[in-house]
Amino acid sequence: MARPFRILFVGDVYGKPGRRVLSAHLPALRPAYDFIIVNGENAAGGFGLNRESFDAITRAGADCITLGNHAWHHKEVYGLLDDARLVRPLNLPLGTPGSGYSTFEVQGERVTVVNLLGRVFMEAVSNPFLAMDELLERPDLGAVFVDFHAEATSEKAALAHHLAGRVAAVIGTHTHVPTADTRILSGGTAFQTDAGFTGPLDSIIGADPEGPLQRFLTERPHRFTVRDGPAELNAVAVELVSGRAVRAERYHYEEEKRT
Amino acid sequence: MARPFRILFVGDVYGKPGRRVLSAHLPALRPAYDFIIVNGENAAGGFGLNRESFDAITRAGADCITLGNHAWHHKEVYGLLDDARLVRPLNLPLGTPGSGYSTFEVQGERVTVVNLLGRVFMEAVSNPFLAMDELLERPDLGAVFVDFHAEATSEKAALAHHLAGRVAAVIGTHTHVPTADTRILSGGTAFQTDAGFTGPLDSIIGADPEGPLQRFLTERPHRFTVRDGPAELNAVAVELVSGRAVRAERYHYEEEKRT
Amino acid sequence: MARPFRILFVGDVYGKPGRRVLSAHLPALRPAYDFIIVNGENAAGGFGLNRESFDAITRAGADCITLGNHAWHHKEVYGLLDDARLVRPLNLPLGTPGSGYSTFEVQGERVTVVNLLGRVFMEAVSNPFLAMDELLERPDLGAVFVDFHAEATSEKAALAHHLAGRVAAVIGTHTHVPTADTRILSGGTAFQTDAGFTGPLDSIIGADPEGPLQRFLTERPHRFTVRDGPAELNAVAVELVSGRAVRAERYHYEEEKRT
Amino acid sequence: MARPFRILFVGDVYGKPGRRVLSAHLPALRPAYDFIIVNGENAAGGFGLNRESFDAITRAGADCITLGNHAWHHKEVYGLLDDARLVRPLNLPLGTPGSGYSTFEVQGERVTVVNLLGRVFMEAVSNPFLAMDELLERPDLGAVFVDFHAEATSEKAALAHHLAGRVAAVIGTHTHVPTADTRILSGGTAFQTDAGFTGPLDSIIGADPEGPLQRFLTERPHRFTVRDGPAELNAVAVELVSGRAVRAERYHYEEEKRT
Ligand SMILES: [Fe+2]
Ligand SMILES: [Fe+2]
Ligand SMILES: [Fe+2]
Ligand SMILES: [Fe+2]
Ligand SMILES: [Fe+2]
Ligand SMILES: [Fe+2]
Ligand SMILES: [Fe+2]
Ligand SMILES: [Fe+2]
Repeated sequence: MARPFRILFVGDVYGKPGRRVLSAHLPALRPAYDFIIVNGENAAGGFGLNRESFDAITRAGADCITLGNHAWHHKEVYGLLDDARLVRPLNLPLGTPGSGYSTFEVQGERVTVVNLLGRVFMEAVSNPFLAMDELLERPDLGAVFVDFHAEATSEKAALAHHLAGRVAAVIGTHTHVPTADTRILSGGTAFQTDAGFTGPLDSIIGADPEGPLQRFLTERPHRFTVRDGPAELNAVAVELVSGRAVRAERYHYEEEKRT
Repeated sequence: MARPFRILFVGDVYGKPGRRVLSAHLPALRPAYDFIIVNGENAAGGFGLNRESFDAITRAGADCITLGNHAWHHKEVYGLLDDARLVRPLNLPLGTPGSGYSTFEVQGERVTVVNLLGRVFMEAVSNPFLAMDELLERPDLGAVFVDFHAEATSEKAALAHHLAGRVAAVIGTHTHVPTADTRILSGGTAFQTDAGFTGPLDSIIGADPEGPLQRFLTERPHRFTVRDGPAELNAVAVELVSGRAVRAERYHYEEEKRT
Repeated sequence: MARPFRILFVGDVYGKPGRRVLSAHLPALRPAYDFIIVNGENAAGGFGLNRESFDAITRAGADCITLGNHAWHHKEVYGLLDDARLVRPLNLPLGTPGSGYSTFEVQGERVTVVNLLGRVFMEAVSNPFLAMDELLERPDLGAVFVDFHAEATSEKAALAHHLAGRVAAVIGTHTHVPTADTRILSGGTAFQTDAGFTGPLDSIIGADPEGPLQRFLTERPHRFTVRDGPAELNAVAVELVSGRAVRAERYHYEEEKRT
Repeated sequence: MARPFRILFVGDVYGKPGRRVLSAHLPALRPAYDFIIVNGENAAGGFGLNRESFDAITRAGADCITLGNHAWHHKEVYGLLDDARLVRPLNLPLGTPGSGYSTFEVQGERVTVVNLLGRVFMEAVSNPFLAMDELLERPDLGAVFVDFHAEATSEKAALAHHLAGRVAAVIGTHTHVPTADTRILSGGTAFQTDAGFTGPLDSIIGADPEGPLQRFLTERPHRFTVRDGPAELNAVAVELVSGRAVRAERYHYEEEKRT
């Protein structure tokens, strides 16, 4: 029997602490995986991706970078979208720069990475369910790995159910908190509602607690800043055999807190 | 050193499958805990609580039942709110029937259970952060256990941060998916973004996949029904010493799928 | 110079009071117009359209009925969608029953009526701006009249701006309150942010004040009922010459309140 | 019989075009009114109020300035809140700088101006219905004029219904489009769902159409800028006798478009 094809998917890299823990820790993981995907939608200062953060993530070992609702925050991202390693959300209008999926050939395996946006509690975009149906009519996609960047657990579970047996994995991102529901759906589709993020510990999904907390307490806007200090890395490891997921598990790493 | 006080918190019981797995499995857990809290906001047909489901949950071994945004779905709940074991959301206007917290004396320990609603991506209610500040000025609450029924990870993390060192636990509910971020915040506050739910496997957060899926595919409303079949139970176990959390871990049980 | 082509567009007919004022008053207006369009999305009990309300509206003199976000509330609507006089929202997935536009030949004039859904503060549907661009590539539509069923003033103004000079009229519905901004955009496009509704006076956008008011006061759900009593009719009259709007004005009628 | 007390309420002044039309036109209206209130929440560049715009509005003739959801956009506003002419939203937590109402003595009449935020489709704040109930228990408020800064027509109608006979006027703001439903509710309360705004013509509620339109077309964020060019002024004139509204009508003025 063939050796499984091992994919590591790293959740939203957030700001400098996220880039630091990725750069420090991903190289050690690199040899254990055939293909590494990193969501970079918060890599530059907590919002979007610029060239510096793109370079940091690829240098750390990522084969592919996905995005999310913050994709367009830094104008520099437009200059990066020609790079086939960068995947922007799929379900956007015709004519959107870049591509919503990218197909890679790795050690004789064909893998297509898709970045997809949810709509529940988020800005209106094209229908993600129908966008996937349309995409899956293309030939030669190989094993399809879907980063579903969405807020609502219902929408994520529904998409996973819709794609069960048709794609290799549906892994959620955007909430920045990993969910403890990693599993293989019937037909060989790995599913986890959210991968969690890669960013500062003791933060409010990446931000220094002061900003969000003042906002909730005062009911007035407050400026958010990236939380300084040690960071965590959250990921999901998926193993494929013949393009089907046979194993999926969470990976978690934390930098040590200084005393 | 004193034996720790052990609390089990069971996430949203959903419909008949949720009540069934609770009734079948909770009695076996009962002896290991000093106090058991069950969120029952979806116990009656997926929405709200009626007398039958209240009785089922208490008979299964719950000492206290909390609610959520679906608290008021069944009118029968109004007749149950005099029971000190039933806690409705705290942050509602003065004059709301029932109470948003309840204090229990168990084996010489005093425990106050609070049910609290979030506001991000939810209906507007009173400020949960300020409602907690006000509540915590009361004397004699003992160890405070907060079931924070909220959607957004940011709001849940912010509340936990706000209450760190002031309450024994902040455990989230409402998303129906357990999060893998169980931890003890500084000051002895157990925190987990969401406990996950207690309801049917292979469902869309409780519902038969057909309804939600048709809705997402057609962009038209579709009727939701409770998913039939085997169920899972998700819970968080928290150990307190002198009113502070010293340990917190997820508990997960699944009924076997028939072949 | 040719006599202008006169269109009357009547805003959301709401429940029995709405149907009553329409049936009583529209026949008197009928002779003054070449074509009458009525939004019927709230005609049956405040939500959706059934056969009885469809018949009442056409008998009152409507040539065409449009719908909105409540289109699908009554299952009976599916049996009515073959009728070319009934237009459901355009921007829904391929395969949605019925049609999102309908073309009529009236006295040598060709008129196409479109029903379109907004997305800001509403359920996610297909992009209304792009759906219109696609529709307008079709030949032989004649003068296009758009009922834009949307909540946000920004989205309505943006659509009107987008279609200015390309369609005969963009008239908003859904908020149930007429706006005082009736005008002709450059290129001959009539625009009014909202036509207002046709339903009970002294109501909360159609509902008896008790339900919504209790909900806002208690922060709990309350049942809504159709407000009984005298009703108002809100409409917009648009005159076209060679398919372009040359005049637009609001029409308002109120049943007398008894003393 | 006494001469009525005449109040002019001018809707959201938006950016430089709004300040210009106000400065140019309000002085001519000034002699016809006893008291002039201007909503200034968008006066500084479309978001918030700074000292320059505060000065411009008062110099133009405003006796009182109200705010809205954008109140806090410019930090300079904090330095202005001690001025009794400036009223920030009422329904915010205790300890919020400034005051949510201000009482004026004008020609022997006592008028209290309130600024109030809605919650439907807006950020979560304190309950506006209950905040008004609490405020109205204070003595010596005189005639109460409420600027209800809210999105949803249902919430605005419900508040007006709730306050009918208890305040002199409930005039909505925030949507930037005037509504054609000006009326006197039973008990002498003037009501109009929205006053409309004071800002650039041919804009998307103030913004240059390009930004919002690109956003709706591309489903990506786009920068908004204030629309240049001629502006409109929207207002509501309310006449009080013995503190009750006896007359209310819309006022609209447009700068001439150059050819
Ligand atoms: Fe993110
Ligand atoms: Fe995101
Ligand atoms: Fe729930
Ligand atoms: Fe819930
Ligand atoms: Fe409607
Ligand atoms: Fe509607
Ligand atoms: Fe405004
Ligand atoms: Fe506003």
